[in-house]
Order: sequence, then C-alpha cells, then structure tokens
Amino acid sequence: MRKKDETKEPRILDATAEIILKEGAAAVSTVKVAKHVGISQSNVYLYFKDKDDLIMSVYRRELNKIDATGDLELATDQSIPVAKRVRGYIKAVYDFALANPDSLTLIQQVKFLLGQHDTNPFEDYPEHENVVISVLQEAIDAGVIKPVPVSLLMSMVFSVIHTHTLNLQKNRYASNDYDFETFYSLIWGGMKQE
Amino acid sequence: MRKKDETKEPRILDATAEIILKEGAAAVSTVKVAKHVGISQSNVYLYFKDKDDLIMSVYRRELNKIDATGDLELATDQSIPVAKRVRGYIKAVYDFALANPDSLTLIQQVKFLLGQHDTNPFEDYPEHENVVISVLQEAIDAGVIKPVPVSLLMSMVFSVIHTHTLNLQKNRYASNDYDFETFYSLIWGGMKQE
Repeated sequence: MRKKDETKEPRILDATAEIILKEGAAAVSTVKVAKHVGISQSNVYLYFKDKDDLIMSVYRRELNKIDATGDLELATDQSIPVAKRVRGYIKAVYDFALANPDSLTLIQQVKFLLGQHDTNPFEDYPEHENVVISVLQEAIDAGVIKPVPVSLLMSMVFSVIHTHTLNLQKNRYASNDYDFETFYSLIWGGMKQE
Repeated sequence: MRKKDETKEPRILDATAEIILKEGAAAVSTVKVAKHVGISQSNVYLYFKDKDDLIMSVYRRELNKIDATGDLELATDQSIPVAKRVRGYIKAVYDFALANPDSLTLIQQVKFLLGQHDTNPFEDYPEHENVVISVLQEAIDAGVIKPVPVSLLMSMVFSVIHTHTLNLQKNRYASNDYDFETFYSLIWGGMKQE
C-alpha cells in the first residue's frame, strides 16, 4: 500500500468543493476529482472510500469550520438567557458566512443531494447541529420564539445570511452598507413570540 | 425539416425537470434528455436550441405556473393597502408551492446554476418578478417593511415555504399541522417595520 501524503487530502477536498460550487454535488466523481488535483484515481481511493465519502467529507469540513469559530459556545452556556443564546447562534452563522463566502453554497448543494436521497443530514452529525436544535427548541418551550418546526427557523437564518453573502459576491452593494443588526432584526423579528 | 409533435415539447421539459431534481441543473445534457424521453438527440434540437435553452425553459415554465395561480393579481391592485398586497404575494408563493411541491426545488437549482454564471435571473424575466420587486419596494418606501435589500425578503419567503414543502415530502409532519398563518406570521414578523 502506498504511503499517504498529508498535504494531498486537503487538496482533494478543495478540488471536490470546487466541482460542487461549479456544477453541484451530483457532478462529483473520483475520476473528475483526480483530474483536478493531477493525481491518479487510485490515489484518491487511498484517502476516500468513494464519491459519497468525498462529498460528505467536504460537508463535514465546512460544518467543522462553523464549530471552529467558537461563537457557538455562547449558545450552550446555560447561565445566559435563551434569547441571547439564539442571538449567539445567528451571530455565529453570520461571522462564519462572511469569513467563508462559499461555505453556505457548499452546504446548500450537499443538502440538496442528501435531500434527494431521502436522508436527514441533521440526524447523524455534526455536534453543532444538535446544539442549534436544542437551543431553538428550548426557546420555543420557554415561549420566547414561535412554536414552529425548528427546520423552518434554521432555514430562515441560513437563507437570509446566504443571500447576503451572494449579494456581496455579486457586488450588489458594499459590505458596510448593512451590518449584523440588519440581518438579526429581520430573523429575530420573524422568530420571536409576540 | 421534420414536423414538430406538440406533445413532445412538454415531455422533453418533464425529462429535463426530472434530471434537475435528481442531479442538479448542471447535469442536464441534450443526450441525457433524449435518452430519458426515448428520442434521438437531433430530435431534441427540433424544439430546443441547446442545453441552456432546456434549463431556462423549465425555469420559465415553473415561474409561469406561479403567474397562472392568479393570486399575484392582488399584489398589483393599487386600491389595496400595500401590507395586504405583500400578504397576497406570500399567499401566492404558498399556494403555488403546495400545489407544485417540486417547483421551488427546481427554481432553486436553476438559480444556483445561474448564480455560478454571474447573471441575475431576475433582470430579464419573468413579468411576475418585477411585480414582486415593485410591491416590496413600495412597502419599504411607505415605511411598512424594513429597509433591507428586496432579495433578502424574497429569499426569506422562498426558503421558509420551500422548507415546509420539503418537510411535507419527507413526512416530518402532517400537512394540516400548520396552516398559512404560521408561515405568514414568521415571514411578516421579520419583514414588518416595528
């Protein structure tokens, strides 16, 4: 068995992410990824089991980046009022999306593919999805936010912030035209129990 | 030149839509579509110029279905207060999405592909996008909704309702567990100027 080259794994994931961003997750193949990196297909198999492993590894890498921002820790701190913790979650997604402008598009496309396979990407991993679901459910139980499916609340957060990053990428306005409070008031205004 | 068969065009579009739903818009090719329908590739060219024409025709067909619901007429009636007209727009998207559960996924995937091409799908057509942009802008100017980019408001409407239809498709809850008022209060709560 050939020896693994530690620098190759991230390069393979970068190539996979590039294909997802350009053509969607269904377009990923080990042949195509190998070609992008300039290695043989068998070399790809040294690091990843198959096409699905490639896609899910890119997905996990993006979600791990959210965890790495650290902002999400606020959401788990039980000494903080739940409304403030929901705000911490929204701020974490916002900071993450601005620092990683392609990430929400990557996540969206992988979720689309997973949706076609009729599986729930939230059920298995990662840790942080559970944190988010818990804090939103806790806020619903406390009567702080509206009693709607948590998936609707998460999709509202995701889509508003994702659209903002796409608008910035397309230069539809300048990055300092709107600040976090703009997006927070839009999202929180919808969520909060009146 | 071969004579056109009027029944073939919708069948070609159905096959294109099926491929988009399963693999994303980038996966569409005239060869693949021809194979799905069971006709020759040259026969596809009798009806559609190329792959992009196929994708955009599916996109337009979905958007025309929104217009066909008729609910959007309410949004253009200047004798009705603007807040009620915004509600009419949200209701139109809701009714449309429930009647056509795959449509918002199709629109999302085509928009994703268009986004990669750095064009704005709203600029060229269809008519109804202009209606929606006008009524939202009018509501902003009247101080009824928050002064944020119209694209953020539209994405909030789209994503909340889209997530609901995906939840229904996955049987995450029953269709009568939540009614229009649930989604409207979530969206309107976010939009409205406090």
